[in-house]
Amino acid sequence: MSSKVVVILIFGLMAGFNTLAQIPNEDAWMIRKIYDQALTDGSAYPWLHYLTKRIGNRISGSPQAAAAVEFSRQMLDTLGLDSVWLMPCTVPHWSRGNKAVAKVVGSKIGDLDLKCLALGGSVATPAGGILAQVVEVKSLEEVEKLGNAALSGKIVFFNRPMDPTQIHTFSAYGGAVDQRGSGASLAAKYGAVGVLVRSMTTRLDDFPHTGGVIYKEDAPKIAALAISTNDAEKLSALLKLAPVNVFLQANCKLLKEQKSYNVIGEIKGSTFPNEVIVVGGHLDSWDVGEGAHDDGAGCMQSMDVLHVLKSTGYKPKRTIRCVLFMNEENGLRGGTAYGEYVKNSPEKHIAAIESDAGGFSPRGFDCESNEAIFNSSFKKVVEWLPLLEPYGLHIRKGGSGADISPMRQHKVFLIGLRPDSQRYFDVHHTENDTFENVNKRELDLGTAAMTSLIYLLDKSGL
Amino acid sequence: MSSKVVVILIFGLMAGFNTLAQIPNEDAWMIRKIYDQALTDGSAYPWLHYLTKRIGNRISGSPQAAAAVEFSRQMLDTLGLDSVWLMPCTVPHWSRGNKAVAKVVGSKIGDLDLKCLALGGSVATPAGGILAQVVEVKSLEEVEKLGNAALSGKIVFFNRPMDPTQIHTFSAYGGAVDQRGSGASLAAKYGAVGVLVRSMTTRLDDFPHTGGVIYKEDAPKIAALAISTNDAEKLSALLKLAPVNVFLQANCKLLKEQKSYNVIGEIKGSTFPNEVIVVGGHLDSWDVGEGAHDDGAGCMQSMDVLHVLKSTGYKPKRTIRCVLFMNEENGLRGGTAYGEYVKNSPEKHIAAIESDAGGFSPRGFDCESNEAIFNSSFKKVVEWLPLLEPYGLHIRKGGSGADISPMRQHKVFLIGLRPDSQRYFDVHHTENDTFENVNKRELDLGTAAMTSLIYLLDKSGL
Repeated sequence: MSSKVVVILIFGLMAGFNTLAQIPNEDAWMIRKIYDQALTDGSAYPWLHYLTKRIGNRISGSPQAAAAVEFSRQMLDTLGLDSVWLMPCTVPHWSRGNKAVAKVVGSKIGDLDLKCLALGGSVATPAGGILAQVVEVKSLEEVEKLGNAALSGKIVFFNRPMDPTQIHTFSAYGGAVDQRGSGASLAAKYGAVGVLVRSMTTRLDDFPHTGGVIYKEDAPKIAALAISTNDAEKLSALLKLAPVNVFLQANCKLLKEQKSYNVIGEIKGSTFPNEVIVVGGHLDSWDVGEGAHDDGAGCMQSMDVLHVLKSTGYKPKRTIRCVLFMNEENGLRGGTAYGEYVKNSPEKHIAAIESDAGGFSPRGFDCESNEAIFNSSFKKVVEWLPLLEPYGLHIRKGGSGADISPMRQHKVFLIGLRPDSQRYFDVHHTENDTFENVNKRELDLGTAAMTSLIYLLDKSGL
Repeated sequence: MSSKVVVILIFGLMAGFNTLAQIPNEDAWMIRKIYDQALTDGSAYPWLHYLTKRIGNRISGSPQAAAAVEFSRQMLDTLGLDSVWLMPCTVPHWSRGNKAVAKVVGSKIGDLDLKCLALGGSVATPAGGILAQVVEVKSLEEVEKLGNAALSGKIVFFNRPMDPTQIHTFSAYGGAVDQRGSGASLAAKYGAVGVLVRSMTTRLDDFPHTGGVIYKEDAPKIAALAISTNDAEKLSALLKLAPVNVFLQANCKLLKEQKSYNVIGEIKGSTFPNEVIVVGGHLDSWDVGEGAHDDGAGCMQSMDVLHVLKSTGYKPKRTIRCVLFMNEENGLRGGTAYGEYVKNSPEKHIAAIESDAGGFSPRGFDCESNEAIFNSSFKKVVEWLPLLEPYGLHIRKGGSGADISPMRQHKVFLIGLRPDSQRYFDVHHTENDTFENVNKRELDLGTAAMTSLIYLLDKSGL
């Protein structure tokens, strides 16, 4: 685009974005000020740089997770908050061990190394690995149909792709991830000795995506590995030619549980200190890449909400609390501990916002809650839409976030920041989830969106 | 994000995205089909790969521009269209020459090479370069105020940053680009011998951004170079300590004008063949990077609109014409030629859509036109919003695109595809505008958005 078109272009845009001096409405003025602050003085990006580059990925129970707790506690400590504290929880500690191996052996085109990652929580294979024939399936139902006769002693290969026609990529993820979560136990029930799962992305590429496998008590635990989508395509093509044998080896281990923490900082409410609004993300990540979008971004944004709010000089009536939850990825122990806290505390939690869908350009908020309070609260929030639409934000019904979900039963109004979802599954749970793939403006706009909604929630209550 | 939250998440999203079989409304059904087609069989991304990697950047008049004409003509030829043809135009041919030099000489910290690019259209410096003292300004007005006494014999350094608080980055661009377009002639009027311009981006980085300089007839032509934002900050800091001298050298040249072409392909209307709907982008680019977002993306999307439309089996009533304009960046000769064609043709052009704001996740359409037709046409288009909103699209008043702007006077309704703007000025007119920075899903969603709107325009007219 040349400069010629710009004069025309901005004509239609100026109306919504006056300078502070021109805005008569108090709420519109404050939101403009929040955006100005976040876009010129946001701290989320430099904080995220430290978290990703100096600490790196940080699976629950790891020294890096402890470093992330200490780093975020120290950063919150610099903000002049009313209190910063740690809420203990005990977390599982899983270790991937050596690099896992998945190798096609003796096929029509010879041997072929598949790019793989053990799924988070996977058990090890027997020490010498396993060699078995592969059976491809597209669904859990197909496993049930095939049964023992077809699957006993085999490696089951789950190869149903994420549906690329879903506009919101999380819907496509939701339509495919049962294979990763539940495939291993179901296959084991019918005698399978291992599983391979096509990576959770619509892209065809060479990067395996890890993510949790959930074992059931009624089946043997067998090793579960993700393979890249390109290798899933290759393996499927080979299976069309002739039977294929694959060698699997992984020495994952579940270590001793560790003590860990949710990291919490807050500005005490001036009028209703016992009414609490929570904003947060999860501090743990999987053990590949840098946990930048998932969920370093959400944590650093949540800390920055307090920083931006302080910088504007706004004095909240209600308590605004940033909670960085531990262990979202493989246990939800931090979210569960906070839910227990809400249950037992004399405080009244009115709303919680979670940012755990990546640090991308924000498109709005999705809201949910216990039915008893949903309609009245949602109606109120929707009334704020004219203040948020100039910043490209919508408000819809929809899911919020895993860490805040235990608060649902305590009648807290739950809100998820909803960024553009198109690029999330390019990087999710892979070595590509790095700082370089986060854009500063997109990250800061997420901070500003959440801070603006918190301002409105604080001012009016729910 | 773990898998636990997904069941909750998709709950709120399913309503809007039924499968084809479940959609009773004919228009909603067709739009769903268009999206399915674009997201599973879109050609824009592989075409863009060829354009960027096999041809590369393609400034007007260059052999690469000619190759781009031939490539896109050949690709259109594969689509089974009713006609594919070239519309001639004569274009300027500017050459950057050797790498330009901008070097701080003998400052407090010694010599310092500034990362620079000659602005597109810049004249050369004298062969041996120029060495002169630098005067920093923040605006054209400041140049006027300083006048001859302060500026004669000097290099004027325009250093007003793009405003990071603008939500739509094109507004920030519009607020700063006068320095790049008009700075040189104004400074020369007061005796300046060269200009440096801070690059057009809100980011602080090491990449100079080129872009057009427009010389006026009433002033000497002096060389104009962009420097990276990091170096603009350094230079400004040095100027606060002491006077700074900079050496400039560039041997840009305006070569002989060349014959070139707009590339055109169309599906003839079955009922109203003389009513035309145009979709397009510009095929030329600046001579750095690969012209991927600017505007390879828009061209390949526009070709893919015809491909997707054909693939759905839809038979348009009106003529749907893809126009790849030549020479948007430094002359608008292709857009002007097409405007002349519209003026003299017996056809009635009812609408034109341009994609020239990057291949990012689409957020909607901006509309403009001659006042005589605006209100009635805009009203009609806005009525389609419920069909487009499930795909995250808005419809607003606003600028469309440079290439289609000459059609405005001929009462054509003009529409710009409006993608998310946050990342555009990270890459615009730099070596970073490469294929790698385009996301396939985001690109295909842009194709689908334009195809859907064209379907509605075709079906109902305006």
